[in-house]
Amino acid sequence: MDKILRQSLLYDFYGELLTEHQKSIYEDVVMNDLSYSEVARLNGISRQGIYDLIKRCDKILEEYESKLKLVEKFMKAKEKADMMKDKIAVLKEKNADKNMFSLIDELDSYTSELLDDF
Amino acid sequence: MDKILRQSLLYDFYGELLTEHQKSIYEDVVMNDLSYSEVARLNGISRQGIYDLIKRCDKILEEYESKLKLVEKFMKAKEKADMMKDKIAVLKEKNADKNMFSLIDELDSYTSELLDDF
Repeated sequence: MDKILRQSLLYDFYGELLTEHQKSIYEDVVMNDLSYSEVARLNGISRQGIYDLIKRCDKILEEYESKLKLVEKFMKAKEKADMMKDKIAVLKEKNADKNMFSLIDELDSYTSELLDDF
Repeated sequence: MDKILRQSLLYDFYGELLTEHQKSIYEDVVMNDLSYSEVARLNGISRQGIYDLIKRCDKILEEYESKLKLVEKFMKAKEKADMMKDKIAVLKEKNADKNMFSLIDELDSYTSELLDDF
């Protein structure tokens, strides 16, 4: 998995366990793609300070993942949901019964929304 | 939600963040339904000590939930998955096309398994 994608997923699941200060800087660097120098300037911290903070946050987030494995579990559920979307697409294609159209559509929507809460 | 059910769900999601000692006693009391006195005797701790430990663990687990809201999110996803199961049951009933039977069955299985990983 791409590093930024992994950092984003870890942050989505465990970000709330970081301090406000850590969150703010992690978001600027990882989610908003600002440069270390820019975030350093904006926060009145050295570039090295930002680098260390990001590294420390990565370590904290990875430690939570090693214990709770939420990203891993989420990716597996996402895979299953994607396979369901494929099956539903085939179902839509094969179905000739007008009474079943809306039912299949509803099922499709539910599948799309199912993991949105996470 | 029933207290034991909530404790079990919180423990499922965040139990790995407790110490081995806390986990062992929490499991005996909450999951294995042993009495405080029995767990106290087995661990050479006072009954009050067990009571305090469980209370402390409940607090730790609830604090994680207040930040990460995984039980809440899981319950919502579970609700959606249950509604999908209902739709699939109707689909099964309405469907007269033999070619679609196995497809609907597969969809049913996926829906059942989807949240098992969590």
